[in-house]
Amino acid sequence: MASQGHTLKAFDEDLDRLRALITEMGGRAEHAIIEAMRCLSERDGDAALRVIEDDKRIDALEVETERRVIQLIALRAPMAGDLRDVVAALKISGVVERIGDYAKNIAKRVPLLEDAGKIEPLSLLPEMARIAVGMVHDVLNAFVQRDADAAVRVCQRDKAVDDFYDSIFRTLLTHMMENPHIIGQSAHLLFVAKNLERVGDHATNIAEMVYYAATGQHMADRVKGAEGLSR
Amino acid sequence: MASQGHTLKAFDEDLDRLRALITEMGGRAEHAIIEAMRCLSERDGDAALRVIEDDKRIDALEVETERRVIQLIALRAPMAGDLRDVVAALKISGVVERIGDYAKNIAKRVPLLEDAGKIEPLSLLPEMARIAVGMVHDVLNAFVQRDADAAVRVCQRDKAVDDFYDSIFRTLLTHMMENPHIIGQSAHLLFVAKNLERVGDHATNIAEMVYYAATGQHMADRVKGAEGLSR
Repeated sequence: MASQGHTLKAFDEDLDRLRALITEMGGRAEHAIIEAMRCLSERDGDAALRVIEDDKRIDALEVETERRVIQLIALRAPMAGDLRDVVAALKISGVVERIGDYAKNIAKRVPLLEDAGKIEPLSLLPEMARIAVGMVHDVLNAFVQRDADAAVRVCQRDKAVDDFYDSIFRTLLTHMMENPHIIGQSAHLLFVAKNLERVGDHATNIAEMVYYAATGQHMADRVKGAEGLSR
Repeated sequence: MASQGHTLKAFDEDLDRLRALITEMGGRAEHAIIEAMRCLSERDGDAALRVIEDDKRIDALEVETERRVIQLIALRAPMAGDLRDVVAALKISGVVERIGDYAKNIAKRVPLLEDAGKIEPLSLLPEMARIAVGMVHDVLNAFVQRDADAAVRVCQRDKAVDDFYDSIFRTLLTHMMENPHIIGQSAHLLFVAKNLERVGDHATNIAEMVYYAATGQHMADRVKGAEGLSR
């Protein structure tokens, strides 16, 4: 049998590898969202196909995370805070996989917008994407550093994403009324905006998981932005 | 120390309780979707508020599931197939919680449709909801019974939900072009249809988790319906 110290060290190394996997997943998901938005703005259909293809790698990383979590629990039998960390890693990888799906969903809409001409709200969407992706980036850093305060700060930024969404939703509806011939394309942009709003929500969900893993408490005063009626 | 037989029995009882929790969550989420659709059809704003309020109970059941999963892993140190079952329970409860969120999201749109008058596609949505909710019901039964074949059959039904979605999407766009004065209300129905389509996707995701938990293999030939371009 290994000594207790040896076992702890092995567990920490396993956990570090798990965190590294999630950081890699997160980096890929962040890049996928930003790249899908670039494809949408520049009507880059070829690059959009690559975003769709690359999502398989994110899916594979989730499967790999689950495999390692199960292995780690079986081999190291972690307790209390360590077990919370491992369970959080499993849940977070599921959420990051979903963020990758949103990027894929946005990329799939690129060819549908090719003949849409200039749609005003399209210029607002990349900025909204940058805020949402920034939240994902920072909340995954908070997970790696077990930083509950940083997780709370991420939640506070979701209000900005929600405000963007409300504004884009209204602008798109006006655009649809004034340009009924491109209602279909505008509807696709409604869904793109909704996807980005969901990315912000998912970053908030991850923040709650990080907070619980780091503290053992549920984030008491959820600092989520108040949900607008248009969502 | 308890005998091995004793420990196994205690584990099975814990796992049964975990399954019962998830069955309760599932029942509540199914009811919430159906009730939210009834509220939408009948413009029943008061009952819609209750759907929104009741979602807190589903959220609380997810927290309870996670608490018990962590306790069960720590106390019983399950291995192999047992550990896969426990991890599946944790992941499935997360997905069911999200299905509850979709019901809440639909219920929130009820007051926004009060002055919408008759919108043709609204009559198709409850049928779409029934198929999606039926998938959720059957896949959770498959989980309780560890029935991998039943899980595969659930996946096959997602195609019908996707076809409904494509049809409703097109009908709503036509409706928007012909009735620009109620474009806002129609846009909300687009999101309702999308939510129901996602419920079908989530049932498919759960089916994959059930399959993996029951067999230790990933569902080889994913029988998901081919995704249409309008999604």
